[in-house]
Amino acid sequence: MRLSRYFLPVLKQTPAEAQIPSHRLMLRAGMLRQEAAGIYAWLPLGHRVLKKVEQIVREEMDRAGAIELLMPTLQLADLWRESGRYDDYGKEMLRITDRHDRELLFGPTNEEMITEIFRAYVHSYKDLPKNLYHIQWKFRDEQRPRFGVMRGREFLMKDAYSFDLDEESGRKSYNQMFVAYLRTFARMGLKAIPMKAETGPIGGDLSHEFIVLAETGESAVFCDKRVLDLPIPGFDVDYRGDLQPIIDQWTSLYAATEDVHDVARYERETAPENRMTARGIEVGQVFFFGDKYSKPMKATVTGPDGVDRAVQMGSYGVGVSRLAGAIIEASHDDDGIIWPDPVAPFGAGILNLKPGDAACDAACETAYAALSAAGKEPLLDDTDERPGGKFATMDLIGLPWQLIIGPRGLAEGTVELKRRAPGERKTLSLESAIQAITG
Amino acid sequence: MRLSRYFLPVLKQTPAEAQIPSHRLMLRAGMLRQEAAGIYAWLPLGHRVLKKVEQIVREEMDRAGAIELLMPTLQLADLWRESGRYDDYGKEMLRITDRHDRELLFGPTNEEMITEIFRAYVHSYKDLPKNLYHIQWKFRDEQRPRFGVMRGREFLMKDAYSFDLDEESGRKSYNQMFVAYLRTFARMGLKAIPMKAETGPIGGDLSHEFIVLAETGESAVFCDKRVLDLPIPGFDVDYRGDLQPIIDQWTSLYAATEDVHDVARYERETAPENRMTARGIEVGQVFFFGDKYSKPMKATVTGPDGVDRAVQMGSYGVGVSRLAGAIIEASHDDDGIIWPDPVAPFGAGILNLKPGDAACDAACETAYAALSAAGKEPLLDDTDERPGGKFATMDLIGLPWQLIIGPRGLAEGTVELKRRAPGERKTLSLESAIQAITG
Repeated sequence: MRLSRYFLPVLKQTPAEAQIPSHRLMLRAGMLRQEAAGIYAWLPLGHRVLKKVEQIVREEMDRAGAIELLMPTLQLADLWRESGRYDDYGKEMLRITDRHDRELLFGPTNEEMITEIFRAYVHSYKDLPKNLYHIQWKFRDEQRPRFGVMRGREFLMKDAYSFDLDEESGRKSYNQMFVAYLRTFARMGLKAIPMKAETGPIGGDLSHEFIVLAETGESAVFCDKRVLDLPIPGFDVDYRGDLQPIIDQWTSLYAATEDVHDVARYERETAPENRMTARGIEVGQVFFFGDKYSKPMKATVTGPDGVDRAVQMGSYGVGVSRLAGAIIEASHDDDGIIWPDPVAPFGAGILNLKPGDAACDAACETAYAALSAAGKEPLLDDTDERPGGKFATMDLIGLPWQLIIGPRGLAEGTVELKRRAPGERKTLSLESAIQAITG
Repeated sequence: MRLSRYFLPVLKQTPAEAQIPSHRLMLRAGMLRQEAAGIYAWLPLGHRVLKKVEQIVREEMDRAGAIELLMPTLQLADLWRESGRYDDYGKEMLRITDRHDRELLFGPTNEEMITEIFRAYVHSYKDLPKNLYHIQWKFRDEQRPRFGVMRGREFLMKDAYSFDLDEESGRKSYNQMFVAYLRTFARMGLKAIPMKAETGPIGGDLSHEFIVLAETGESAVFCDKRVLDLPIPGFDVDYRGDLQPIIDQWTSLYAATEDVHDVARYERETAPENRMTARGIEVGQVFFFGDKYSKPMKATVTGPDGVDRAVQMGSYGVGVSRLAGAIIEASHDDDGIIWPDPVAPFGAGILNLKPGDAACDAACETAYAALSAAGKEPLLDDTDERPGGKFATMDLIGLPWQLIIGPRGLAEGTVELKRRAPGERKTLSLESAIQAITG
């Protein structure tokens, strides 16, 4: 992409309403625009990040054997009356009446609808297990939306739902999602710690939240800090094999949010030097709730014994839009965002310090073509902005690499290459710089 | 994908409520489930088609220089009061009140919101032209939703918006979208004819609808049938060059919907042997409406002469979810859907006629691995269903190729290969069959 043709409305000033770094930086970097309280438009740069995050979530769900579909944003109120949650949900549910006075709602989650879909088609244990997921916009009418996409009202969530014949098999589905989550967040450059958690309005008695440590997190967390060094399962993990040892390894060390924190157990199980109290951002949560929905909604399957029973279910959420913010909370400095490569909106920036200069233009075009061909999706700053402004924008938007091309360097056969994370610059030939980025 | 692990709930019976082939076939093929009047869940097979259609639309938008972002589904009522459309829109607009009694609406289109975004950031002619688009779920509260996704209430639309300094430049943006649409629909295997059209509630006085001919179409259309043979611009069309000759070629032959049909002109310009009266499905519409939104909403830019003027705008919609149905209307037979390769949910089906038979299983795995590696995304029917049922399902879901592997053929070193469209079967070696699909 050439910046002169792109739409990247960076802000020079820090918006007063933004209280945390991710919100400030998403507004300043031209990623986001607020359209109403807790409702945002994702500007082109933000949209690219959102798509990268979504795609990693999708790939790891597919790898774990989950099957993608897409449920609508609007749901019938009557569906939620079947489970009993319509009245329970309170003011967070956005209730809507259509032109024919039918009661709808903007879905905050989809347990009811997926159970309705399941029961319409699946009647035999032979079709189990199944794990169905979608990535769709949800709405929760937060009393006080704040912190940008971290606590918005309209948000993008991946939610998966597992269906099994019995609890033991249900637990295996739960473990598959647990492992998929470890991989998902690690691929985005995040350290996400699974912690025992409350089940809240979703229900059930088995649940883990996946928490990214960040000063601005909304939850206090307590954990054994050795959990930070546990190995992430590889891409070749056998999802159809026994995953329990991985789960045991991750859950044997103490880790809990304040809601379920057990001080006595914490102090008993965790040596003082390993105790870590921190704040965290919830980026995902997994639940096993058995027949909480299948029983009232009559989603039954016939077992091998010919007996009908309510299917055993779990649900598994990832906050896709929130993750864009969480990654920034975990990875930024005073100058701006530092994107981990896998979620960077562009793989590299090319700074033409003197557009119109034949040598600069030619070198930039060479780099642009080479990086494009290598799938690095470069952003070429071909605007008339002064060099200082170009440097500031590139640091702000946080692309992993900056390839800086100016007339003085070119006269000596060199360009500069900066890796955003440590911030160091190297002087080298154009070919070597391209090689370093693509190699 | 292995069918035994997939979720493909095909129906043996034709649902009574479905009146047109696409609706019937989408329900029968397990693509779609109705969740409320005009509101559908896209089951896994349907979701795959929707994603393919969406991706073709995206690629052609990007090629034409449009830039993707993502606006939210919900909008503030006050934004629509600025343009004067809040009261005009009537009952088709789904109006919503949140917990703080703020008035929202589920966006039926985004002219107002994109104008608000534009005016917040762009103030100079130097930043023009710009063309911003998104692919997002919309809602129109149709009085009588019907025909499945053809006239649903919650639907997926691509909408692009162009911003130019003057009418001449705006006309160039319009032409870019016109050409992009010709390419987009052709890539899906559709003959979509641009026709002069009414502008309706969007406004302006220049508009074309893109119409796919189908018996079940909702509009009567009148055209010079030679338009069906006009050439589609290639992928290397120069979007920054002069596209007017292409537009002139396509608009010089008479083509109009009944709303704007001019009988006298039709009979004057079209020889009797070239006249074609048919029915059509609108799959896209392009509008140029100048300052209809920019003027009341004060979206102005400073020109090179230092004078501020309201920006010249157009908008360009494609019915992404409707296209899935339109493609079926244009391509099916008595046995089911016939997907054009570029939008097929899977590139090929592999039918194992005797799972458990070592030779059949081995040959199927060989084919599955080879087709997967070639990016053909095969669907392997490894279920215990009888062969007759497998044939019927494959014909119904309409994958372009069927690779039929059974014990009798294998004993003679052969498999059968069926191309769905003409329906003919060939007997050949497994290697040759794989070669035919991937070659």
